[in-house]
Amino acid sequence: MNGLLTDLYELTMAAGYFAAGKQHETGTFEFTIRRLPRNRDFVVAAGLHRAVDYLLNLRFEADEIAWLRGLPHFRHAKPAFWEYLASFRFTGDVFAVPEGTVLYAGQPLMNIRAPLIEGQIPETYLLSAVSFETLIASKAVRLAHAADGRGVFDYGTRRAHTPEAGVLSARAAYIGGCAGTSNTLAGYRYGIPVVGTAAHSWVMAFDSETEAFRELQNLLADQTVQLVDTYDAIEGARTAARLGKPLWGVRIDSGDFFLLSRRIRRILDDAGLTETRIIASGDLDEVRIAAIVEDGAPIDAFGVGTELATSADAPSMGSIYKLVEIERPGHTRYTAKHSAEKGTIPGAKQLFRFPDYDLLGLHDECVPGAEALLKPVILGGELVEPLPSLEEIRKRVEWPPKPFPRLMKRSDALENLMAEVTA
Amino acid sequence: MNGLLTDLYELTMAAGYFAAGKQHETGTFEFTIRRLPRNRDFVVAAGLHRAVDYLLNLRFEADEIAWLRGLPHFRHAKPAFWEYLASFRFTGDVFAVPEGTVLYAGQPLMNIRAPLIEGQIPETYLLSAVSFETLIASKAVRLAHAADGRGVFDYGTRRAHTPEAGVLSARAAYIGGCAGTSNTLAGYRYGIPVVGTAAHSWVMAFDSETEAFRELQNLLADQTVQLVDTYDAIEGARTAARLGKPLWGVRIDSGDFFLLSRRIRRILDDAGLTETRIIASGDLDEVRIAAIVEDGAPIDAFGVGTELATSADAPSMGSIYKLVEIERPGHTRYTAKHSAEKGTIPGAKQLFRFPDYDLLGLHDECVPGAEALLKPVILGGELVEPLPSLEEIRKRVEWPPKPFPRLMKRSDALENLMAEVTA
Repeated sequence: MNGLLTDLYELTMAAGYFAAGKQHETGTFEFTIRRLPRNRDFVVAAGLHRAVDYLLNLRFEADEIAWLRGLPHFRHAKPAFWEYLASFRFTGDVFAVPEGTVLYAGQPLMNIRAPLIEGQIPETYLLSAVSFETLIASKAVRLAHAADGRGVFDYGTRRAHTPEAGVLSARAAYIGGCAGTSNTLAGYRYGIPVVGTAAHSWVMAFDSETEAFRELQNLLADQTVQLVDTYDAIEGARTAARLGKPLWGVRIDSGDFFLLSRRIRRILDDAGLTETRIIASGDLDEVRIAAIVEDGAPIDAFGVGTELATSADAPSMGSIYKLVEIERPGHTRYTAKHSAEKGTIPGAKQLFRFPDYDLLGLHDECVPGAEALLKPVILGGELVEPLPSLEEIRKRVEWPPKPFPRLMKRSDALENLMAEVTA
Repeated sequence: MNGLLTDLYELTMAAGYFAAGKQHETGTFEFTIRRLPRNRDFVVAAGLHRAVDYLLNLRFEADEIAWLRGLPHFRHAKPAFWEYLASFRFTGDVFAVPEGTVLYAGQPLMNIRAPLIEGQIPETYLLSAVSFETLIASKAVRLAHAADGRGVFDYGTRRAHTPEAGVLSARAAYIGGCAGTSNTLAGYRYGIPVVGTAAHSWVMAFDSETEAFRELQNLLADQTVQLVDTYDAIEGARTAARLGKPLWGVRIDSGDFFLLSRRIRRILDDAGLTETRIIASGDLDEVRIAAIVEDGAPIDAFGVGTELATSADAPSMGSIYKLVEIERPGHTRYTAKHSAEKGTIPGAKQLFRFPDYDLLGLHDECVPGAEALLKPVILGGELVEPLPSLEEIRKRVEWPPKPFPRLMKRSDALENLMAEVTA
């Protein structure tokens, strides 16, 4: 499964490592946050569940192999390579920072230690899957913080880069602190609270707004949220108020939220609907939400779509996946890239978190008093223990991260190794 | 399949339409480009293949229905609604602009005419799937144009919002004019040319760059592209030149492309490798590519990742999916939304393209001399004819679109209908 879902060069390199007799060398590859996304001071790690699922199920099917064999790139590949690919399994070790952990630029998120080919092929998939959910969780934590205790709901699936990405985005948003999602499949698959009542189409499908609102109340009872701005938000709010309870909330999706929310609050209060919430949606981001909260506008919850599901102000992250060492019988070679502005740090590492700073050291260092953030997840191709639940992951997210910004140091052992490799 | 991959409110509305006896009313929903993406003067339609696949296979499984029944939103849904959902099939009509067509703000991309519930449920999926590929095709056409005849290759899967989105992004990039992709699965599934040879890991995995380059040549022969900047790009180019033919190309992934490409070109030429191409990759977008082309730097092809696969400068598009009319026995009701800055235009429409302008008219108007862009794709739940091949779709993309910008007018019949509905 998923064997071809990678860049072609991972597979040409695989054929090449095989031809060069390197399939028994063990490589350690490091997934590192080289650059933070724009506008971010830190990220919240997410997406590990997909990395695990991928590595445990990575296979090449017969028809995929047959197709590969027809490409000009593999004309000189060894015949035994195709047998190798047909029985491919990931047998290596994965050490990863738990989902929900706050990380900074230059910090490793994951280490893969495996036979060279098995560590190489997953590069493309892991970078995409883990970076994406990390991006969204890192956006969600900002939205949730800006809302200052009011609920933020993920409405973003229609703007996500594919509907399937919307499901994963909903999960990452929940990790980052969102209160729920409109994505039904995310509720079914991950147990995330789902929200949603009606769209403008609903109101337009009836001969009058009053009829549309009444029918929705009949169906949803105490779950009813009336969308009031199909024709005129104030008139819509009056209609909702006239129909009375049960009415969980009203939603406004356009116009001036500062003014509208105050006028609607009064309309609801005057009708005795003091418990009815006001929800705002439409082109919201953390800056607008913070402004609304600071203004004191009576909005109880926010629905966020585009900005959340695409991390619109920062739709990518400078993550890299680099070979840091190769173990051969009796000898370990430490590897690094020296390119201008794109250099890497050699050696299999560990990230040690102290209360007041982080220490980047070597994987086998003993550092008392710190939490070793890269924890064993897969050993010898087997999952070590079940992954934490989504609720456990959510609890791990600290806001604001303390202390912030966090100082990062390097251990003496790592400094020595770096000096040795670049010498 | 995919029944729950939608916003919850589509399903609560479905239950509500059913309760209100509206399941036999026929609605027309219009997928419209309300706002163009940032920095775009037009878009290239793409993603229709996914809309078709979704609509033809949309189903609700028994366990999904059981889960829905447990949600508080459906406590008052009619028991017969669950039987309806269990036997749900899309039986409606779809009219769509062919993939590869250039479109402008305010233009419809697709019309769905179906029983109200069948037209409502697909909203979320269609908006996401079609907008995403349209975004990427619209970015690709800019990159391809900037490259002015040089090849642009999609290297973006690792930056795509999920690896699976990377496959679709590769397809959309190819529609928009890219020459190929690094995504292997996109090659296997869609027949797109695949490219890729080796990463920095490959070079680091060998004791010397010379050994790494020689092994790659042994494997790839005339497909060989050496990545020269792992340690020092000029030294790397010298090593590649020393090893000589076969050498399809060398790739530089960092540094000053203007200077490096000229120095490397001379190194290659001096070694008699005048046919060997220079490929540049790393943080490229259409602005940088245009600058390189204008400068005359000897770069023969570009690999683009982040900017292409995330449409980084414009990661979303203001597409909407709105109810525009409802047919009931003996009476059609035209519907529109009047919200501030978010109003919609009523009536099932057709987009007529004349050589020098576009006319937005009603669906049943006869307009001689124009191409009716919304063409029947699905009728009565059945595909009308096989979708065009990717090569046919690519040919449809005009660059630059002529005339540009294109004037859009409205037909008298549509103007009259608008006046009537807002009266």
